[in-house]
Amino acid sequence: MSGSGRRVVATGTFDILHPGHLYYLEESRKLGDELHVIIARDANVRHKPRPVIGEAQRLKLVRALRVVDAARLGDPTDMFRPIREIDPAVITLGFNQHFREDDLEKALRERGIGAEVVRIGEYTGDPCTSTRRIIERILETRAGSGKDQVPESRKGGS
Amino acid sequence: MSGSGRRVVATGTFDILHPGHLYYLEESRKLGDELHVIIARDANVRHKPRPVIGEAQRLKLVRALRVVDAARLGDPTDMFRPIREIDPAVITLGFNQHFREDDLEKALRERGIGAEVVRIGEYTGDPCTSTRRIIERILETRAGSGKDQVPESRKGGS
Repeated sequence: MSGSGRRVVATGTFDILHPGHLYYLEESRKLGDELHVIIARDANVRHKPRPVIGEAQRLKLVRALRVVDAARLGDPTDMFRPIREIDPAVITLGFNQHFREDDLEKALRERGIGAEVVRIGEYTGDPCTSTRRIIERILETRAGSGKDQVPESRKGGS
Repeated sequence: MSGSGRRVVATGTFDILHPGHLYYLEESRKLGDELHVIIARDANVRHKPRPVIGEAQRLKLVRALRVVDAARLGDPTDMFRPIREIDPAVITLGFNQHFREDDLEKALRERGIGAEVVRIGEYTGDPCTSTRRIIERILETRAGSGKDQVPESRKGGS
């Protein structure tokens, strides 16, 4: 442990940022002094459709959030490697992340990692708080509309 | 003018945040000491399709960015009112915003507002740097796939 305070690790895909992500990160940050985010690589997202937004771009957006102290992409083959490097006191899970707390703690202990696992609750304060719902909404409202072109000639005024 | 430094105003819809937005905000911020963002209200987005994400949620995300010092929604009827309140030295336009610099400066002068108008160039460093392109990509890759459901039973392990 370096002397720099209690580190928290949050993880996720963060495909199309929304207030649900923000809530997860803000609640995670409250559990320590520094929030480190590990972002899933495109190739490692296998339990749901491939992200719409590529990994470099997802990383850039998460890094731009005030609540985030550091962000990096996950390891291509060993998900525990960045956790060992960061050496967090706490690892948080989002409400819909597919790990079970006890399974993950067991796997961490087997690798000599002492971090506590905390599940952050669901945020329900806004209408579009899941990437899936945002995508559904786009498919419902925009498919076949052909209206996503901004008229070239339209200019300001009021 | 209060004594708190050179204020810059950036404006936009900011529907589905992407690195193009971030570039616009970062370049705007460099032109002064404080970045104030005015976010278009849903009802005032008329020159392109209505935003996918509602105004309260778009405001929340922009406000969460480190580069942003303050953010608010636009005025429902008078786009100049928040500009008068903020009293910026500079107002920036994104590369695809539909105002012309000289038209906007003329309208500002007519209202006794002395701010300079600066157009920020296009950012091309990432593949998905426009909301329209992100939406097109979703329509191309996800329409009819029915794959946006995460299997309930899928649990962690590696």
